[in-house]
Amino acid sequence: MENPNPILTAVIMAGGKGERFWPKSRIRCPKQFLSLTGDGETMLQKTFQRISGFVEPAHIFIVTNGEYMPLVREQLPDVPEENLLAEPAPRNTAPCISLAAAVIAKRYGDATMIVLPADHLVRHEEICADVLLRAASAAAETDSLVTIGITPTYPETGYGYIAFSRAKNLPRGVYHVESFKEKPDIETARSYVNSGDYLWNSGMFVWKTNVFLDAVRKYLPAAYEITEELQSACDTPDFENVLQKRFPDMPSISVDFGILEKAERICTIPGSFGWDDVGSWPALRRVAKTDTNGNYRDGDILTIGTKNCVFSGREKLIAAVGLENIVVVDTEDALLVCDIDAAQNIKKITEMLREQGRGELL
Amino acid sequence: MENPNPILTAVIMAGGKGERFWPKSRIRCPKQFLSLTGDGETMLQKTFQRISGFVEPAHIFIVTNGEYMPLVREQLPDVPEENLLAEPAPRNTAPCISLAAAVIAKRYGDATMIVLPADHLVRHEEICADVLLRAASAAAETDSLVTIGITPTYPETGYGYIAFSRAKNLPRGVYHVESFKEKPDIETARSYVNSGDYLWNSGMFVWKTNVFLDAVRKYLPAAYEITEELQSACDTPDFENVLQKRFPDMPSISVDFGILEKAERICTIPGSFGWDDVGSWPALRRVAKTDTNGNYRDGDILTIGTKNCVFSGREKLIAAVGLENIVVVDTEDALLVCDIDAAQNIKKITEMLREQGRGELL
Repeated sequence: MENPNPILTAVIMAGGKGERFWPKSRIRCPKQFLSLTGDGETMLQKTFQRISGFVEPAHIFIVTNGEYMPLVREQLPDVPEENLLAEPAPRNTAPCISLAAAVIAKRYGDATMIVLPADHLVRHEEICADVLLRAASAAAETDSLVTIGITPTYPETGYGYIAFSRAKNLPRGVYHVESFKEKPDIETARSYVNSGDYLWNSGMFVWKTNVFLDAVRKYLPAAYEITEELQSACDTPDFENVLQKRFPDMPSISVDFGILEKAERICTIPGSFGWDDVGSWPALRRVAKTDTNGNYRDGDILTIGTKNCVFSGREKLIAAVGLENIVVVDTEDALLVCDIDAAQNIKKITEMLREQGRGELL
Repeated sequence: MENPNPILTAVIMAGGKGERFWPKSRIRCPKQFLSLTGDGETMLQKTFQRISGFVEPAHIFIVTNGEYMPLVREQLPDVPEENLLAEPAPRNTAPCISLAAAVIAKRYGDATMIVLPADHLVRHEEICADVLLRAASAAAETDSLVTIGITPTYPETGYGYIAFSRAKNLPRGVYHVESFKEKPDIETARSYVNSGDYLWNSGMFVWKTNVFLDAVRKYLPAAYEITEELQSACDTPDFENVLQKRFPDMPSISVDFGILEKAERICTIPGSFGWDDVGSWPALRRVAKTDTNGNYRDGDILTIGTKNCVFSGREKLIAAVGLENIVVVDTEDALLVCDIDAAQNIKKITEMLREQGRGELL
């Protein structure tokens, strides 16, 4: 507890491909840069607003793919240019966060980092802010890696789960993480939810840079070596060069699998603020406004005897007759019609297009 | 049998609106002017070819809506201009055929008329031609109204049925019509098919002009009066004027309901030549080529786990995932996605568009 009031920073991870939202999400403009809920604000902008009330824009960092820099600049004009970090190659979340930690450590020493995916939605932003701030305090006080857990409201099979338990040495409302669980089958998900001992793993984390970098050194030494090089080159003319040369050598691994599942001082703060990772088209029925028949409608939509569907269109009329549990997404050059229970197979379409050399549709 | 070898003429009824094929079929270019099976020939052109092998193009008449004249001229350049008859207002099939009968009677006296809808499909054209020629002989020999029946192959609920019986005074292969039956429910359709006593009513008819005009006089006297006026004005400078003024006064009634169900000398010739009225989108699965999963595909279609669907697109990619029994029709300004069992409700969409004043989409 050498530094009880570290600078509060935030890292938004915005490098995802968003393939499960094809054909609206494209390689050149994936999910996080789209306004999927049809209210005009992109998911990245919503994420920025989520934290900009209590983290100065000068302390907010965006890690993304170089190709997306123009989109980030356009959508987030308040974030300083030097806080936009471009990964030369996608290497999953552990290297992504290591890069941000290197830059933040170089500039601010042992700062607190709130780490957020750019493509989640939150209904109750104020409650979310309070949970993140409590997590920041806990991270500073306890020198732990803090994950934000979400109190589950139904047995979702698309999320990972956190087994948690009370621990005497932790502040009130902060719990010990027993283990992380992969996405369960429906039976297991039901037992998790019924037991009361599990939270959803939100993919939002809070920790101090030194605590995180110590964990990288311990569990991902190959990544740590490169992270050290990045940190020493940061804010020197050499940085871009070192980043281009060394970042691609990072192991491609998630922070969950590479660090959190192995680390010892992990705790979780349960939150309940209408969080959703909006993992695929059907999720829009949960997170956005639906009509009285449970249909999500974005566009010029006419329905007859149609329920629990998702419609995402443009100017063109979409007429739906007698449909149930169907996703219809119309774009300029591609139309998707998908049964909601088969939404996980949308990526097979993008794989087929890749194999057929039809990259212009990806 | 005063005229055993009358001139053989044909009348193609091409005035339908084809609303059940919305959004590809539009008021300005309905079903009969489209190539729904994707082979480049329109249904009207196929119908013309069906008969032009044994009826001279100079003896083939097209009755349609004035608005469609340019389409008819473009698609059937071999039919003489004076054989294109434009109804000033749609008045169902009895007035449509009366108009044609008036013109044919004026020009050729007691000719034989083969009457065909412009929007049916036939798989075995040669067999169809033989049946029509046998019907022409029977119509000339017996002074009857001859309907072409189709030996049913399954209990279709979308067709009307003909109850038939053997009659000693008719030539071999020609049967007496007991009665016409409206579209049955599935139970009734099954009993019809199993009994062996019923045929599908194809909507194709053969008769001599005098026999038909006698029946109009007897059963639709109001229509007969106008038909006589049309006949006497035909091929005079006054014809267009009489047509415009008098045709709209015709009762709007089908030939089945207005004449055939009441007339006495009705007989039927059963045919079996892969006939289909292609009444709605799902019918394309019966009449056109499908893939190994039973999907009809017209356009750039990619499917994953998808069966028994109908896809009609354009250049744009249509990706289908996990679908079963779904119709997807993509056009420039409207997209239809419809459960096959709800296809009869497509007209509710066009009704809604009409109510909303969105005529440009009809």
